[in-house]
Amino acid sequence: MTKKGTILSGMRPTGRLHLGHHSVLNNWVQLQDLYHCFFMVADWHALTTGWEEAKEIRPNTREMVADWLAAGLDPEKSVIFSQSEVQEHAELHLLFSMIMPLSWLERVPTYKDQIKKLGEMGKDINTYGFLGYPLLQAADILVYKANAVPVGEDQLPHVELTRETARRFNHLFKPVFPEPQGIINRELAVLPGLDGAKMSKSYHNYISMGADPDEIKKSVNQMITDPNRIRKTDRGNPEVCVVHKFHRIYNGQLLEGIEADCRSGSMGCVACKKQLSAVLDQELGPIRERREKVLSQKGYIEEVLKDGAERARTAAGATLQEVRKAIFG
Amino acid sequence: MTKKGTILSGMRPTGRLHLGHHSVLNNWVQLQDLYHCFFMVADWHALTTGWEEAKEIRPNTREMVADWLAAGLDPEKSVIFSQSEVQEHAELHLLFSMIMPLSWLERVPTYKDQIKKLGEMGKDINTYGFLGYPLLQAADILVYKANAVPVGEDQLPHVELTRETARRFNHLFKPVFPEPQGIINRELAVLPGLDGAKMSKSYHNYISMGADPDEIKKSVNQMITDPNRIRKTDRGNPEVCVVHKFHRIYNGQLLEGIEADCRSGSMGCVACKKQLSAVLDQELGPIRERREKVLSQKGYIEEVLKDGAERARTAAGATLQEVRKAIFG
Ligand code: SF4
Ligand code: SF4
Repeated sequence: MTKKGTILSGMRPTGRLHLGHHSVLNNWVQLQDLYHCFFMVADWHALTTGWEEAKEIRPNTREMVADWLAAGLDPEKSVIFSQSEVQEHAELHLLFSMIMPLSWLERVPTYKDQIKKLGEMGKDINTYGFLGYPLLQAADILVYKANAVPVGEDQLPHVELTRETARRFNHLFKPVFPEPQGIINRELAVLPGLDGAKMSKSYHNYISMGADPDEIKKSVNQMITDPNRIRKTDRGNPEVCVVHKFHRIYNGQLLEGIEADCRSGSMGCVACKKQLSAVLDQELGPIRERREKVLSQKGYIEEVLKDGAERARTAAGATLQEVRKAIFG
Repeated sequence: MTKKGTILSGMRPTGRLHLGHHSVLNNWVQLQDLYHCFFMVADWHALTTGWEEAKEIRPNTREMVADWLAAGLDPEKSVIFSQSEVQEHAELHLLFSMIMPLSWLERVPTYKDQIKKLGEMGKDINTYGFLGYPLLQAADILVYKANAVPVGEDQLPHVELTRETARRFNHLFKPVFPEPQGIINRELAVLPGLDGAKMSKSYHNYISMGADPDEIKKSVNQMITDPNRIRKTDRGNPEVCVVHKFHRIYNGQLLEGIEADCRSGSMGCVACKKQLSAVLDQELGPIRERREKVLSQKGYIEEVLKDGAERARTAAGATLQEVRKAIFG
């Protein structure tokens, strides 16, 4: 099948993934057949906001890539690699830095916000590297001449900077780069955490993608339901219930019935949660099995990353040849 | 002979060198026997203040390295290479950027000065790369674990930033880097241009290192002498004469006699210049011959740079292994 183009996407290596990442991964899995995909462990990016935890990056990478593979990323179809294994990203970032007006980086909306936010958490991230973060992203994307980047809405300014960088380079030297489009998947379901807040590792309100039936049951039991339902025959309001939000995503076919039974009071929350646990177990069971298989093959993840890095270097190296020629002649 | 340590020094590829560079090169030639020397064509640095002339960087590199070799740099003793051939510089620069407070770069004394100065010349260099220039220098130096850097006095703040970078890295991760010392050679003679101003390509007041006898004679004839000497028997003042400054450097043994003859009026400027031309020709003759030889061997300079880049990559690669281990564990 002819592919629609090239995609670069990545995640910071935060370790085992949770259901908040699951829909992003499902999206990646679908993109694999439509595009040439480069999926990157953004380990250099992880340093921009926390070199204190740098020692966790390697083990976290292993855990995360296990989840990627378990969710269905296929190293035969896609290039799966760590950013830090491909020096071309650093070289292109450096070359771009020479044509990147300081003001373009300073005005990226997330920049000042993040410094402030992390500053309030006692983290001083006001480094040269943090300022250059969106430029490194531009290099990550453009080094593969990606023409599409799946992103969340908040990332659009970064894609815009990437486009501007490409435009500026093409204009000053020679047309080498495409201007990549951000693909926003508005259907990407955003799952809340067990407590209704954003699902996040640091809030301890998540279900990990590799959760086993016991963990699933325990987590589902912790989910906040409609607080006005005292007795199980009280009429409920699914709109304010976390369990319902999970049903909406993982149990779409039965959703209408569940909503009706909740509203009429004919189904209690215990039964409703039981149903969700079963559905989640069905969904996560195969992921968990693939995860275990992936981890049981000694050296397999390392092999995937090594092979991916080689393929990434080949692609990135070809672009850099063009870039050097465009600049130096 | 045991070497005293490792040196990194470099020049931007500005093309054929002139006598203003000659004493720097003489110094490098001497350092070759005392230190492990890395001599770098700073071609990425050349982009920080002028990507408009990027197409001249490659031919300029060739001309400059021809002069380096002609002046006595020895590829058997020293590693002669282009920065852009060693991606490790870019990687280390990127890694350093993550621990480099923005304020450290902003307060480098040359930073705001240069932006202003070049701004007045109509050049807008206020880029991310220009701000990071001293950090790239730190990476250039530390990637070879150089412990000494021959510099001019104005470069001392950059060496200080390199030392601070090394200290910060060693403190945050693991002691990997030495804190390099700036070696200032106060005996480095500073030659004026033919007109008494600073010798510089852009002022067209220079004598190139490869000048032939005709060019030398023509240049020496243009040199400004004591303006109060009208007739050749007038008493002269060598202190205000450009010719005298060249004698001082290239004709040290006969200097006292020349000064006396000038002051007494017993030697005319024409004769004095004739003597200087002869001395310069004697000095530059062998350089010119080596230059021609170097350029006549087809592919020789390319070979030197290729071999140098390989040796540089080996050394830099070993450091980067340590660096990655220190950061990521
Ligand atoms: S029945 Fe289900 S949807 Fe309704 S409140 Fe209880 S858990 Fe939530
Ligand atoms: S005699 Fe020589 S030193 Fe004296 S003014 Fe003339 S050129 Fe200069």
